[in-house]
Amino acid sequence: MVAELLSSKIGASKVSLRAEDISVHATDKWYASHPPDVVVFPETTADVSTVLEFAHRYGIPVTTRGAGVGYVGGCVPIKGGIALSLARMNRILELNPEDGVAVVQPGVITGDLQKAAQALGWDYPPDPASLKECSIGGNIATNAGGPRCLKYGVTRSYVLGLEVVMPDGKVAQVGGRVHKNKTGFDLVGLFTGSEGMLGVVTAASLRLIPKPPARAMLAAVFPDFPMAAAAVQGILNSGHLPSALEITDGFTLAAARRRLGPERLPDGDAHLIIEIDGRPRAVDYEIDELEELLKKLGATRIQRAEDEDSCEEIWKMRREFSYSLRDTGLTKLNEDIVVPRSKLVELVAFARQLEKDTGIAVACFGHAGDGNIHTNLMVADYENPEIRSKADAALDRLFKWVLDHGGAITGEHGVGIAKQPWIRQALGENTFNLHKAIKGALDPDAILNPGKFLD
Amino acid sequence: MVAELLSSKIGASKVSLRAEDISVHATDKWYASHPPDVVVFPETTADVSTVLEFAHRYGIPVTTRGAGVGYVGGCVPIKGGIALSLARMNRILELNPEDGVAVVQPGVITGDLQKAAQALGWDYPPDPASLKECSIGGNIATNAGGPRCLKYGVTRSYVLGLEVVMPDGKVAQVGGRVHKNKTGFDLVGLFTGSEGMLGVVTAASLRLIPKPPARAMLAAVFPDFPMAAAAVQGILNSGHLPSALEITDGFTLAAARRRLGPERLPDGDAHLIIEIDGRPRAVDYEIDELEELLKKLGATRIQRAEDEDSCEEIWKMRREFSYSLRDTGLTKLNEDIVVPRSKLVELVAFARQLEKDTGIAVACFGHAGDGNIHTNLMVADYENPEIRSKADAALDRLFKWVLDHGGAITGEHGVGIAKQPWIRQALGENTFNLHKAIKGALDPDAILNPGKFLD
Repeated sequence: MVAELLSSKIGASKVSLRAEDISVHATDKWYASHPPDVVVFPETTADVSTVLEFAHRYGIPVTTRGAGVGYVGGCVPIKGGIALSLARMNRILELNPEDGVAVVQPGVITGDLQKAAQALGWDYPPDPASLKECSIGGNIATNAGGPRCLKYGVTRSYVLGLEVVMPDGKVAQVGGRVHKNKTGFDLVGLFTGSEGMLGVVTAASLRLIPKPPARAMLAAVFPDFPMAAAAVQGILNSGHLPSALEITDGFTLAAARRRLGPERLPDGDAHLIIEIDGRPRAVDYEIDELEELLKKLGATRIQRAEDEDSCEEIWKMRREFSYSLRDTGLTKLNEDIVVPRSKLVELVAFARQLEKDTGIAVACFGHAGDGNIHTNLMVADYENPEIRSKADAALDRLFKWVLDHGGAITGEHGVGIAKQPWIRQALGENTFNLHKAIKGALDPDAILNPGKFLD
Repeated sequence: MVAELLSSKIGASKVSLRAEDISVHATDKWYASHPPDVVVFPETTADVSTVLEFAHRYGIPVTTRGAGVGYVGGCVPIKGGIALSLARMNRILELNPEDGVAVVQPGVITGDLQKAAQALGWDYPPDPASLKECSIGGNIATNAGGPRCLKYGVTRSYVLGLEVVMPDGKVAQVGGRVHKNKTGFDLVGLFTGSEGMLGVVTAASLRLIPKPPARAMLAAVFPDFPMAAAAVQGILNSGHLPSALEITDGFTLAAARRRLGPERLPDGDAHLIIEIDGRPRAVDYEIDELEELLKKLGATRIQRAEDEDSCEEIWKMRREFSYSLRDTGLTKLNEDIVVPRSKLVELVAFARQLEKDTGIAVACFGHAGDGNIHTNLMVADYENPEIRSKADAALDRLFKWVLDHGGAITGEHGVGIAKQPWIRQALGENTFNLHKAIKGALDPDAILNPGKFLD
C-alpha cells in the first residue's frame, strides 16, 4: 500500500519491494538488522521532499542511507518503514577551484570527489578509511574523520552549505557556498553529524583547498608503546604538524608480523607512521628533521617514503594491520574512542588489563595525534548471546574508563545503535535533554531515523 | 528591586547600578544604545546559574557581554533587564600542550591566550583584528574570524567543549576536551556563533596546535584590482595555502598614501599581503617561489619580510590602512560581507558603481582568500537621520547584490542589530523558521538577548 502510493507519487522505478533490496537495506557494517517495509531511491530533491511529506502525513518512519558502510547501525531501519537510499543522487554538480568549492549530491563516493578535485590540483581532505566506498552524505551524517584530520580537520571543516529536506518535506538552504559565513546559527554544523535524525541532506557545498604538491612519510618501529607515545609528543612539541600520525600497539603488530613476515616488520612493540605534506623542498627538509628526531626518540627502525608510490606502500602496510586482525579468525569490535593525547599510554595499559581480566584480546591502533585510538575487542562470535554479554560487559568497562579519563566514546563512527546504551552516561542528563529538545523542535513527530540514540 | 534581590543572591559586589556601569554596558562599537536596568558581574558558573534561574523565574531579559567590542550591537541590552558581563571570569584555567588543550573562562582576552600558548611553543590561531581587546567568550558568540582563517579556520575550529548555562540556570557540558568527538549532535557548533541567544558560555576547552616556528610575508602593489585578484587565484592554483592573503582596493590605498607617504606606498591601485608559515627553511624556499610568482603576475613593487619584526611592520602598515580611512573624517560602516572568491573583481566594480550612484565612498579591503571583504561605506554622520536613511538604502543595494551573487551578508561580525533588517532575506523563510524553532526549544521564554535578529 505504502509502496503503491509512493510509486504513484515519484514513479515506480524509484520504489522497491524486491527481497534483495529489502535485505541489503536492513543492515550496515554493524550487527543490527531490521528490514524496511519499502526501499525508496529518490533521484531529485523534489522526490525526497515528496517522500518526506508523505511519510510525515502518515507517521511512517524514514531511515536515510548513504553507502551503508557505517560501523554503528546508524542507517538500520530498526522501526521498519521507508529506507531512503540516496545512492542515485550521486552527481558532482560543480567543481570550482576559482571559488574553492565543490557542490555535490549526497550519494557521491568520497574518494571519487577527492580524485576529481586532485585532478585539478585541488583537494577535499577528509579521508575516512572507507574512502573508496563511503558517500559524502554518510560522511556528513557522521561527521566522518580519518588520519589527515590531525592537520586538516573533520568533515565539518569542509561543509559550507547544505540543502536539507525537513521531516515535513520543506526544503531549507543552510550555510552557503562561501568560505566564511556568520548568517545566523551554525545550522550546517547542527545537521553535520546528526545521523539522519534532523533532516535529509540532498546537496552539499564543500570547501576545497589547494592540493599540497608533495608528501613524504616515515614508518618507525619502537621497542615499546610508551616510547612511541612519547615520540608523538616530541614531534608536536618540536612544532611539526604532520598530516597524519598513526600509532599501533604490540598486539596488532604481532598479528601483522605473522601476516607480513618479520623482515617487513621487525621486532618492537609499537609502530608509528608520520605523514607530512607541503611544497616539495619543504617536505624534503622536514622529513630529514623528523627522521633525526625519531632516532633521538629511540626508534629502532625507520622506513622512509619520499614519493607517491612508496607513501602508498606504507599506507598499504597500515591497512594490512587491519587485515591481520581479521586473520586471527576473531570478530573485531572496533570502538573509535578518543582520549586526551597525554593518556595514550594509560589507555593501552588499561587495554592490557582488560584483556587479562576478561580473556578478550584488545588491539589498539589509530590516530595518535588526535588521541582517537581504534580500540578493537577481538571476540569469537558477537552474535552468540553468551559471548556478546561478556563483550558488552568489557565495553562497559572500556567506555567507563574512557569517560573517567576525560575521553569520548566515539570520535568518528557516531552513536547509532551500537553506542546507544552509553550515550546518556556520555552526554550527562542536561545535555541529553538538550538533544531531545532540538530533536523535538525539528522533527516533532519523530519520523526521521527512529529507534536510535535519543529513544 | 531586581538589583537588591540579585545582590542578596550572589553578593552586592557583583551587582551594579552605577551610572558609569550602566552607560558602558549600553553599547558596543556599533550605533545602537540602550541602558540595562542593572549590570551583573558573575565570578563563577554558579553565579551565572543563579542569575539566569532568577531572570527566568521573573521573565527578565539577560544580555550577555564579553569585552563589548562587537561591530553589530550584539551585546546591546535593547530590551533593558540584566547586562551580564563576563569580564571578571577571565582566568586561563589550564594550558596543556601534552593534550593540545587550553581551558579558559569566557572573559580571557584572546591575545592573552595566544601569547600564553606561544610562550610554550604552541598556538591558538584565531586572530580577529580586535585580538588585544576582545574576549574568547565574545569570539565564541560571534564565531570570530581573522586573516589567518584562510589556512587555520574560524573560532569554531578550535572549540572542543563548552560549559553552558541554559536560560533556566541548568548547566550543560557540551563536547569535551578531546580533539575529535562524535558523541551526539554538534552542540558545540550550535552554541558557537549563537550570539548569546541560546545559552551563556562559562568555560571553553580550546584546541591548541604546535606553533609553526617561522613565518614570512610579501606585500605587493599591483597596477589595478583585477590583477591583484588574479594573483590571489594564481597563488592558490599553484598549490600554496598562505596563512593570510589580504587585498586592498584603490580608495583605501589612496587614503593610506596620504597618511604614509608615497615612498612607503608607491603608485598602484591594489595591494596584496601574503603571509606564510611553517618550518624555517620551508618558509625561506616558499617565499622565493611566491615572489617569483608575484613578479610574473604583474606586481610592480614587492616588499619582503623574513623575520618577526619586518612581518610585524607589514601588519602594522595593514592596520594603518584602517586608520587612514578614519583620517578621512568620515564614519566607516564596516560591512563584513563575503563573496565567492571568483567574484572579488565584480564586487569592487559594484562598489565603484554604488559610490557613483549614491555619493557614498566605498572602501574595500580584507581577507581575499576567503572572499571575506570588508566593504566600508564612508558616511558623514550615521546618527543623522537623513544620512542614515541614504546609507541604509546603499546597504540595501550592497546586501542584495551580495546575496544575488551567492555571497553572505556577514562573515565575521554576526547579525546582532546591525544586520537584523536583512536576516530574513539572507536566510530564506524555511531557514529563518528553523532558527525560531531552535530558539523556542532552548529558550522558550526568550529571556536571552531579546530584541535581536530572531525578533
